[in-house]
Amino acid sequence: MMERISKLQQKLKEKNGSWAFITSTANVFYFSGFYSHPHERLLAVVIFPDDEPFLICPEMDANQAKQAGWAYTIVSYDDVHHPWHMLRDELNRRNVQTERIGIETSHMTISRLEQLQSCFSHASFFDLTDPLHELRMTKDEKELQTLRQAAELADFGVDVGVRALKEGKTELDIIATIEYELKKRGVRAMAFDTMVLTGTNSAHPHGVPGMNRIQSGDFVLFDLGVVLDGYCSDITRTVVFGKPTEQQKQIYDIVLQAQQEAIHACQIGTSIGSIDKAARLRIEQEGYGAYFPHRIGHGLGIDVHEYPSMNATNTMPLQAGMVFTIEPGIYVPSVGGVRIEDDIYMTDKGPLLLTTYPKELQII
Amino acid sequence: MMERISKLQQKLKEKNGSWAFITSTANVFYFSGFYSHPHERLLAVVIFPDDEPFLICPEMDANQAKQAGWAYTIVSYDDVHHPWHMLRDELNRRNVQTERIGIETSHMTISRLEQLQSCFSHASFFDLTDPLHELRMTKDEKELQTLRQAAELADFGVDVGVRALKEGKTELDIIATIEYELKKRGVRAMAFDTMVLTGTNSAHPHGVPGMNRIQSGDFVLFDLGVVLDGYCSDITRTVVFGKPTEQQKQIYDIVLQAQQEAIHACQIGTSIGSIDKAARLRIEQEGYGAYFPHRIGHGLGIDVHEYPSMNATNTMPLQAGMVFTIEPGIYVPSVGGVRIEDDIYMTDKGPLLLTTYPKELQII
Repeated sequence: MMERISKLQQKLKEKNGSWAFITSTANVFYFSGFYSHPHERLLAVVIFPDDEPFLICPEMDANQAKQAGWAYTIVSYDDVHHPWHMLRDELNRRNVQTERIGIETSHMTISRLEQLQSCFSHASFFDLTDPLHELRMTKDEKELQTLRQAAELADFGVDVGVRALKEGKTELDIIATIEYELKKRGVRAMAFDTMVLTGTNSAHPHGVPGMNRIQSGDFVLFDLGVVLDGYCSDITRTVVFGKPTEQQKQIYDIVLQAQQEAIHACQIGTSIGSIDKAARLRIEQEGYGAYFPHRIGHGLGIDVHEYPSMNATNTMPLQAGMVFTIEPGIYVPSVGGVRIEDDIYMTDKGPLLLTTYPKELQII
Repeated sequence: MMERISKLQQKLKEKNGSWAFITSTANVFYFSGFYSHPHERLLAVVIFPDDEPFLICPEMDANQAKQAGWAYTIVSYDDVHHPWHMLRDELNRRNVQTERIGIETSHMTISRLEQLQSCFSHASFFDLTDPLHELRMTKDEKELQTLRQAAELADFGVDVGVRALKEGKTELDIIATIEYELKKRGVRAMAFDTMVLTGTNSAHPHGVPGMNRIQSGDFVLFDLGVVLDGYCSDITRTVVFGKPTEQQKQIYDIVLQAQQEAIHACQIGTSIGSIDKAARLRIEQEGYGAYFPHRIGHGLGIDVHEYPSMNATNTMPLQAGMVFTIEPGIYVPSVGGVRIEDDIYMTDKGPLLLTTYPKELQII
């Protein structure tokens, strides 16, 4: 944590910032080790260029913040105190001159900005979103270890799901089994709502699982991930239940080839956009371009979607330590959908796959 | 939906608004029937005082929005198009004069406001947060039915959890079993991370379940809820595994009595603050005031925390149709915690309990 705080302190000095007001769950966790969704209640880490940081949180969470390793001051409030006044009082107590406040403009709401403005009426504001995303974008060795373990649990989840497939079972039956087995292994939270989509329901990239029953000849698409010690995994696999048609086999092969070409394109210094294009070109050449409506992937870490955005217009070069997904898909409304997704860690030697569940077409 | 849209149109006319830009998952669902967490992607319902509304969403979600019942225009974009420009183009196409835009300041981020400002540089903004919360605060008959079903599933979840208790099982084992059975019954998502807290871990109002094992003499606290057709439930029950101590029995009785007194205080026209005070007074009189660090409850509906906030300083009178939780608790660090929570629907005849799982102290 100290190293992370130091890096942000450096940024604050460069930008002449009086202090940084860090409020998103992910960034509070990044700097404090305390992972919390406080709903509408205020939770923030306040970081100064030179002084010690402090945390402001609901009184009932203060002990957990300490247990999570926060070793500095905690300013806590109950449901009848005014957290913004307590923030101001703590800054007054420290004799801080508040001129420029660094905030997360892509997380902070307008009403919170108004609160800050009313407490610090002479202050100006500057955005820390990009510097914070960039700090988090390359992962260190410890983060890699956690991400790898999270990916192993995602592999395990797919394996459980594939083994649970049976004619007549519903999508939700399979999800229940997957999450049951993951929780038995100590998983506290999924990274997002687990998706098991059968038949034509798999043709929705953001499909909603329900009481659809698994039938012979269906694609079954699994998209799932876990949160482990604050870090997410995210895997997609698609199998065929029963005998696949020629078209199903063809679509599967194209997606798999597109995914492999995109992964192959991942080299240090390559622009992110060209990775999206590698997969898109393959899918377009095969005549399915109109059925691949999303970007090739997204950064992965504390948030399940974070920097870098793996889209066609991103010119950023790949760097060692980046973690992201590669997940092309083809979704044909009357037929079904195929998506194959892995989590990738960029090393100097090339892409390292964190998810390793087999990708050849499985016929169950 | 039409009636809801009409009510907002009326508000827009009163406030001289050009259009409303509705972006939170809950409010988009309220007006469109489409329930979606679009992460960083733009999802909005645009509502005019007189013209037909439209929805803007990712292309890959457009079909689902239609299936959810959205019968008006959908403006959709893929990952390389600029949704803000498409929004502006649609408004230009309709020849709309944009002077005052209604937004959700407690949801909209500063960076999104900047996007709107750059597209509509002469527009001013006004806040719709309170009118929207007020629209949603009283529930109609159909919403009540859904909330009641969601509450029944929460009752069922506690029942499953209590039956699954066994010496040596972990908190996560019990959670796995509860969620497995709920998913088998068709539940797609929990309203929040299910909590099963044993022993001294129950002394954290926002405790994090883990590998703690159930032991004789432990309090076991269950806090869980489901999302059903877009509406949440939220129940807490606490039991003792094995033989309770006198202090455990005493704490339980105080919490139960405080909860019953708070529920009894729920009458149309009563100020919300006085309901919090009814429970707090009881707990203070018994000497545990310092161990009840949170408000008595929160509104419940599409969001698991919504209006009204059931805290001591809220002077709003209770109205028929409000749905909220009543959940006093006592948390003693070295002993453990007890919380008892029900979902309440306010009727002209008094409070109606939606959650009905028994509340006398269960000794397992």
